Amino acid sequence: MAFPRPKPNTMETLASERANHPFNTRKLAIALHGSERDLELKERFMAEIARHPAFKSSDIHDLSKDEIRERTMEKFASMVHFVTTESLEVFNLRMQLIGIADPAFWTRFGVAYGLFLGAVRSGATPNQLSYWIDRGVLGLNGVIGCFAMTELAHGSNVAGLETTATFDEETDEFIIHTPHLGATKWWIGGAASTATHAAVFAQLIVKGKKHGVKTFVTPLRDVKTFDLLPGVNIGDIGKKMGRDGIDNGYIQFTFVRIPRAHMLMKHTQVSREGVVTDPPLAQLTYGALISGRTSMVGDSSNTAKKALTIAVRYAAVRRQFSSGKGKLETQILDYPIHQRRLMPLVAQAVAMGFTGMKLQAMYNDMSASLDVLEPSDLKETHATSAGLKAFCTWACLDTIEKCRQACGGHGYSAYSNLPAMYADFAVQCSWEGDNTILSLQAGRALVGAWGAASKGKKLAPGVAYLGNPATRTAKSDGSLNHIDIQRGFDCVAANGIKKAAEEYVKLLKSGKSKDEAMEMCSSSRFVAAKLHTMGSMFRMYREAVEEMPETDESKVLKTVCTLYGLWQMEELQGAFLKYGYLTADQLDKVSEQVDALCLEIRQYAVPLIDAFALSDHLINSPLGKWDGSVYESYFAQVRASNPLPKVHPYFERLIRPLLERKNADLPDVEKDMGLDEELAEMRAEMAKGNQKEKKVQKKGASAMVKPE
Amino acid sequence: MAFPRPKPNTMETLASERANHPFNTRKLAIALHGSERDLELKERFMAEIARHPAFKSSDIHDLSKDEIRERTMEKFASMVHFVTTESLEVFNLRMQLIGIADPAFWTRFGVAYGLFLGAVRSGATPNQLSYWIDRGVLGLNGVIGCFAMTELAHGSNVAGLETTATFDEETDEFIIHTPHLGATKWWIGGAASTATHAAVFAQLIVKGKKHGVKTFVTPLRDVKTFDLLPGVNIGDIGKKMGRDGIDNGYIQFTFVRIPRAHMLMKHTQVSREGVVTDPPLAQLTYGALISGRTSMVGDSSNTAKKALTIAVRYAAVRRQFSSGKGKLETQILDYPIHQRRLMPLVAQAVAMGFTGMKLQAMYNDMSASLDVLEPSDLKETHATSAGLKAFCTWACLDTIEKCRQACGGHGYSAYSNLPAMYADFAVQCSWEGDNTILSLQAGRALVGAWGAASKGKKLAPGVAYLGNPATRTAKSDGSLNHIDIQRGFDCVAANGIKKAAEEYVKLLKSGKSKDEAMEMCSSSRFVAAKLHTMGSMFRMYREAVEEMPETDESKVLKTVCTLYGLWQMEELQGAFLKYGYLTADQLDKVSEQVDALCLEIRQYAVPLIDAFALSDHLINSPLGKWDGSVYESYFAQVRASNPLPKVHPYFERLIRPLLERKNADLPDVEKDMGLDEELAEMRAEMAKGNQKEKKVQKKGASAMVKPE
Repeated sequence: MAFPRPKPNTMETLASERANHPFNTRKLAIALHGSERDLELKERFMAEIARHPAFKSSDIHDLSKDEIRERTMEKFASMVHFVTTESLEVFNLRMQLIGIADPAFWTRFGVAYGLFLGAVRSGATPNQLSYWIDRGVLGLNGVIGCFAMTELAHGSNVAGLETTATFDEETDEFIIHTPHLGATKWWIGGAASTATHAAVFAQLIVKGKKHGVKTFVTPLRDVKTFDLLPGVNIGDIGKKMGRDGIDNGYIQFTFVRIPRAHMLMKHTQVSREGVVTDPPLAQLTYGALISGRTSMVGDSSNTAKKALTIAVRYAAVRRQFSSGKGKLETQILDYPIHQRRLMPLVAQAVAMGFTGMKLQAMYNDMSASLDVLEPSDLKETHATSAGLKAFCTWACLDTIEKCRQACGGHGYSAYSNLPAMYADFAVQCSWEGDNTILSLQAGRALVGAWGAASKGKKLAPGVAYLGNPATRTAKSDGSLNHIDIQRGFDCVAANGIKKAAEEYVKLLKSGKSKDEAMEMCSSSRFVAAKLHTMGSMFRMYREAVEEMPETDESKVLKTVCTLYGLWQMEELQGAFLKYGYLTADQLDKVSEQVDALCLEIRQYAVPLIDAFALSDHLINSPLGKWDGSVYESYFAQVRASNPLPKVHPYFERLIRPLLERKNADLPDVEKDMGLDEELAEMRAEMAKGNQKEKKVQKKGASAMVKPE
Repeated sequence: MAFPRPKPNTMETLASERANHPFNTRKLAIALHGSERDLELKERFMAEIARHPAFKSSDIHDLSKDEIRERTMEKFASMVHFVTTESLEVFNLRMQLIGIADPAFWTRFGVAYGLFLGAVRSGATPNQLSYWIDRGVLGLNGVIGCFAMTELAHGSNVAGLETTATFDEETDEFIIHTPHLGATKWWIGGAASTATHAAVFAQLIVKGKKHGVKTFVTPLRDVKTFDLLPGVNIGDIGKKMGRDGIDNGYIQFTFVRIPRAHMLMKHTQVSREGVVTDPPLAQLTYGALISGRTSMVGDSSNTAKKALTIAVRYAAVRRQFSSGKGKLETQILDYPIHQRRLMPLVAQAVAMGFTGMKLQAMYNDMSASLDVLEPSDLKETHATSAGLKAFCTWACLDTIEKCRQACGGHGYSAYSNLPAMYADFAVQCSWEGDNTILSLQAGRALVGAWGAASKGKKLAPGVAYLGNPATRTAKSDGSLNHIDIQRGFDCVAANGIKKAAEEYVKLLKSGKSKDEAMEMCSSSRFVAAKLHTMGSMFRMYREAVEEMPETDESKVLKTVCTLYGLWQMEELQGAFLKYGYLTADQLDKVSEQVDALCLEIRQYAVPLIDAFALSDHLINSPLGKWDGSVYESYFAQVRASNPLPKVHPYFERLIRPLLERKNADLPDVEKDMGLDEELAEMRAEMAKGNQKEKKVQKKGASAMVKPE
């Protein structure tokens, strides 16, 4: 008897998937990354972390929270070098890669470098800024900041925060104070064990009058000893769903005094005499919000691509059920239903990637010309980015889970990395605005755009279709090219927005306030936002492809774009049927085309996901190994991560007693003890009179067992 | 300055939610649990575990995997008592409750008690069974079993398992062997550190001939020392997405010999001489499969109810944004969109509960009369249960995630318990059949039923609607009562099944084999299964309500049923529009009704979920505390679970060097080193001739720095 190796092995199978495909993988990778330079930078960053001991990834699933926290701080220390030596643009690309390699570290670094420093940059006067630069905010030496906005009882409603900053005219100080439990600063990344200072969002109170929420740089710890400063109480908020590398904490301030100059006064100012000067106009914070959302769209694409790299490679090597006696078992990627599970998600991940790049370009243009922008354009970009943040992060989370399920049981192993990816990513649906709330914000802007369109006003490019009544009634003739698909999205989005807008107007007319009316039409607003956002994504992907020269690679990307558009039509079939863009028969044709495209793209699915250009170290999943050595790598990882203990930790205490116990022949209690006879005797005794009864009582409880 | 407590506090708010509601909570709880006795038993079980130290739940999120494993074994030891003293029915109810309190423990116990013992019971001859009973299988003393079916490279395809059991005629033994890595037994619950024996699924080989996969009871460990037996190699497969309390392991057998009598021979037999006798008919295994699926439908309902208890109570006490100056902030449950997020899921959880009870009753009837059943009825129950397992476990997983997101940021805290619930539950979509595969199985049976219907054959009750062409074309007149909704589901399901069946027939006619045709119509088959299953759930819920006497409680359940049905119509709007059961206007009316019902049910949402009757200990989430003390409980738990270390674990090593480092004024390297001048000098030297050059070479590398 031998130890046969089944043929072909998984490595041979995966190699054969790369044998023939109608494009150059490297060229496709460049197209997907925007430029050769960006791809090469990404490859450099991946090589750097793969070799750096702090970025070891294979043991990450078996570290304790405390070990992960410390490891993450090692990464932190390894990264500050680049902050001071790299251009902002290159460093941002680096952080983008870090975001998919280690989301917790990305957060921990981003809190100090992005949020705290961002708050200081945008809120400080020039003198204040140079003061903090002298103290070391730029190089993260001298000051490591955290961003203390959210409170236990207040998240989305920043204006409702309850921490107070009361001006004390006598001492020229602010008193930072947490008035009650609900106002405890909560979720503060870096607070538990990293930060020396916090940008504290608090209600400014001067001479007893509230002036709204402002930002106060508040020292938390002695930078020499790291001891908490008087009046500052900080705790660790402990285990989270994911991202345990970031030390989120809570902070309670009890009458903590800071100099007046620690309030960031670029906008609102408080003078020595306690005169509060508000800026002439509320500041535009659109820029920072749009920037954050843009990066989340890109992160959604990249994270989805990471999950799909695992699921597609695994599906190519996993075999199950033979199609006939003596035949090899079938690769699960060859089953039409498995193609249906994965290929549309691949298309969606690519769509999110191009959408993120387009959004980034829009944001760059906007930043370069903030003054000359039409307010409607800015509003539209803001609304579109809100919707994209919501629907892209949802799409990515859904993709991770579907990839996990597509890997069957092995997707449930921590070592597949898909569970951790899900747990890490999930927070993206809540932070920077709960997705549902953001969708409604987008919907609110769309209702407004509808009003503008019906008054014949000029519309921003992203909602220009609302001004063209023809798009709202166009009908497909059955054969759907990109223009037809786009017109379809414009049609259903316009109709969906119209429905929400009409509901809103009707509610206003019935006497509701604007706010009430907006809340009451929120179901329709949500649908409107969804239809518009999906249409926007298709538009951005389509336009990106149209801008490319015609090559083998752009041809593939066009095919993938067609799949994305048609699949989304199918997903949103209710709207396409409802608004008459498709008939039932045409919808069936769409489904047939989706089936056919899934089969077509399956033929080159492996080289296509190879072009996502993610290293084995970054993927960190034996199921998604580039060389296809799935089972060998998985087995090796499981063995290395789980050495058996020399002594069973609880055999003697818990298992042996179980194994060696006898089945108690449980006696019939009454019978064995003879209780009934006993009781009869007792009653007889009692009937005899008081003397005897007393005697029994004297003997007490024991007499009950064996009465005289 | 004082420490004000905001009014009303969360406890007052939650109490006021229980002040007025149109039903008796206790009576509603009884209706939801099927009987007062079942409710009382559940309450008893909950009280028992809340008081038992092994079932402490508050610290569970901060235990290491090893600690959880040991804790779980303590629970195991505490439960064996009930195995030997309680009736099977009561013990099953107990396990059902355990399933939602601690899914990992439920699995660990279920493997030994359900799977291993189940395999022995169903596979052993009477003599074999009494042998194993004498050895202690019933009381889990002497033998603790595990169920060694799945292999590293084979899951769903049991017939393709590659472990071999070769009969050795000389010694009258079987040789159990793992021929290669892919055949390693994998995911085997209890193997890593609990089991003494395994029910091993292996290819029976006698005289060189394969006879298919049979079951062999194989000892793994010495029951006295717990040492692994010769040839048995077992490892721990380590961290999983969830359920870390169960010690899943891998097993490799290297020519392990067991007596012939250890093969379970109720069905296939192997004689001393190596004569293999197969049973006259393939055994019906429908029963065990349906039973497992039934319990998963119930578990989906119960787990969804647990998640919803947390999210609904939290939504009732969480306030965000004031609707006007001086007004209290609004309870988030009062926002229409939040009602839309949660109320349909409440309705779905209730629907799954009644579906589970109906399915259980069907299964009980079936078990009682397996002989007299029509094969078509059995098939139909089998197919319906496959679809229900898939769509109910998906619905539950989706509910947990939506509840988590509905709790905003706090849903991301481990202490909300929703992350662990998600991680624990997720495996239900993969085990006992991947959901997609099970849906296709259901779809295959429906395609078959369609064929039977078109030949005028008698149909099982669950698919009887296929025999009534009227239901397939019926149109709604706009006002939808339960009968109209049911007719709608029957209409779209029948049309969806028709589509799949016609595709299948067309493929057959085009020359495809049956298997090929089935695979190629799998998209349509999947849709057919979904529509049929959703219709079945509505039917079972509706019938359960119809069977109740008319009371305040049944009225509420009827309203909830209406919401469930209409919401599902909206969810499946594509099908309802496509098959003409609803027009676009009627669909809008359905949406309006859903909005209205969400608002109506919101009024008594808190007492409604109170009737789910889940204890604070079982919920294990401060966000879902019965008394509404959300923030106090959450803060207390975070503090208790995360005592700050006395000494910062890595300040000196990692943070101080960061804080105290100077910004290196990085010099321009070339300039500082004077390299260009140096190189010019070197070139000049070299030009002077060979002697000098040699001199430079002699000095080696150091000469490069300062040439002569």
